[in-house]
Amino acid sequence: MEVMFLGTGAGSPSKTRNTQSMILDLRQEIQELWMMDCGEGCQHQILNTSYTLGKVKRIFITHLHGDHIFGLFGAISSRSFQGGEGSKLFIYGPIGIKKLVDNVLKITGTHLNYPIEIVEVNENDEFNINRFVVKVKPLQHTIKSFGYIICQEEQLGSIKVDALKNIGLKPGPLYKEIKTNNEFTHNGKTYLSKDFMTDSKKGINIAVLGDTMYFDDLITTLRECDIIIMECTYLEGDYATARKYGHIHLNDIRMIQSECQMSACILTHLSNRYNNYDLQRIINDSISTLPYKTYLASDFKKFKFINHK
Amino acid sequence: MEVMFLGTGAGSPSKTRNTQSMILDLRQEIQELWMMDCGEGCQHQILNTSYTLGKVKRIFITHLHGDHIFGLFGAISSRSFQGGEGSKLFIYGPIGIKKLVDNVLKITGTHLNYPIEIVEVNENDEFNINRFVVKVKPLQHTIKSFGYIICQEEQLGSIKVDALKNIGLKPGPLYKEIKTNNEFTHNGKTYLSKDFMTDSKKGINIAVLGDTMYFDDLITTLRECDIIIMECTYLEGDYATARKYGHIHLNDIRMIQSECQMSACILTHLSNRYNNYDLQRIINDSISTLPYKTYLASDFKKFKFINHK
Repeated sequence: MEVMFLGTGAGSPSKTRNTQSMILDLRQEIQELWMMDCGEGCQHQILNTSYTLGKVKRIFITHLHGDHIFGLFGAISSRSFQGGEGSKLFIYGPIGIKKLVDNVLKITGTHLNYPIEIVEVNENDEFNINRFVVKVKPLQHTIKSFGYIICQEEQLGSIKVDALKNIGLKPGPLYKEIKTNNEFTHNGKTYLSKDFMTDSKKGINIAVLGDTMYFDDLITTLRECDIIIMECTYLEGDYATARKYGHIHLNDIRMIQSECQMSACILTHLSNRYNNYDLQRIINDSISTLPYKTYLASDFKKFKFINHK
Repeated sequence: MEVMFLGTGAGSPSKTRNTQSMILDLRQEIQELWMMDCGEGCQHQILNTSYTLGKVKRIFITHLHGDHIFGLFGAISSRSFQGGEGSKLFIYGPIGIKKLVDNVLKITGTHLNYPIEIVEVNENDEFNINRFVVKVKPLQHTIKSFGYIICQEEQLGSIKVDALKNIGLKPGPLYKEIKTNNEFTHNGKTYLSKDFMTDSKKGINIAVLGDTMYFDDLITTLRECDIIIMECTYLEGDYATARKYGHIHLNDIRMIQSECQMSACILTHLSNRYNNYDLQRIINDSISTLPYKTYLASDFKKFKFINHK
């Protein structure tokens, strides 16, 4: 389970940060690539990665602001020529996205050579996608904005081969049955499967949030998450300004981390006002003092999530 | 009078060519910057030039295909933050562009801090813009596509100061009158203004064409043009394929140049199939044998047009 950021800036692109987009690479788990948001130029960014648009199976849009969606039209259009032919694409986003995409494709005479299904989401919707559940959570921004909580199914433990050999059971078809059934029979004796398997592991839950200001229910949403990927447009400065524009301030991140346990927190959608010198100073002075491991995203930075539980 | 190309590829962006856009710099003539087409990522390209979106006064869209327009929404949105505040923007394009832009801005909650006027153009429309006339000419493509013929007004000659001094007239307010009137009176004698001015110069006419296949009337359109900037998606290969997709083949360029006189021809919208090695070969083998100076555009290449007539 990996993410690569394709755009990590806020509002407009800068020379160093594109507008919002990331790839969630679930190929190891379910052979799917997902894209979270699709700011203008995200198809340009992908050209500099090992991913191709044709392999993207699902695109989740957190909200309809341009810096999160103006790349969608070009990306789905180019997908036709990047291995997407005949391969269905699912697009999830707030109400309005279907009309938006349909209108743009129609007026610009854009023909896709693959089917698309546009799913308009509502708060608290849940989508079962293979071995994941995606939960749609409401945020508070200047327009309707959502967080997607991507919950991996519990990961079954693995077979204790030595223990099975001790009861005279060598690797074979029965091993699969042990994994799926609670008990199994061997040489006329019944065994509990769990005695021959390592403990199952809770899956990883990843929160990918759209733009939002802090609000109390956010804590409830984030409490179940191991990895929190969220905007932090305002890394310093006046807190009231952040709230006025419906964005997160680093003070909010500190508050969230005092209430929620997490493995890591990745901050993106950083205001273009911060140059590299500012960011390093903020990391040294503030980010490094947060309770949990907290990273600032940058374009093309990749994070790999490993389940240690 | 200069142009800088912001995007010179066809269809989808590549690592070396963005989708279509160019800046027409008329600041020396009429203190205006124009943008011709606005493919996705053109606002990213502008960040690497000395231009800013806020200074762009008019955007002309040749046709509504995505590789010519998907950057428009982001560009006009970011213009608010790049010196555009309060500065009116004119957008010209085929019928449908107003609905497209209005819908996208509305659904994405995009608020501009400056007024826009969207002008839907029809074939043979003419717009008088300061000392230029922009003529809208029909092309033949898979959707409605236009060429914009940008015609500079005749350039008045300059005052022959020495000749005026010879009749005893020193520099002063009368000089302005000589430039604007056919005759003038000095010491009771009437003179013809033209005897005291260098010859006027015909203005430069620049054709900027959208996607098109060759058709006979194209010759009529291009006959009055000094600089022809046009697509040439197919620089070699099967001619029928170019026509099938409604595009120009280099054979068409040769035919046009056999029928029209021009100062220079600049080819853009080049298919991504050609790498730099191909292009150099095609320049050596074909482009260099064309009747008129012909250039292949590339991103950030700038051309300056000087009136020698």
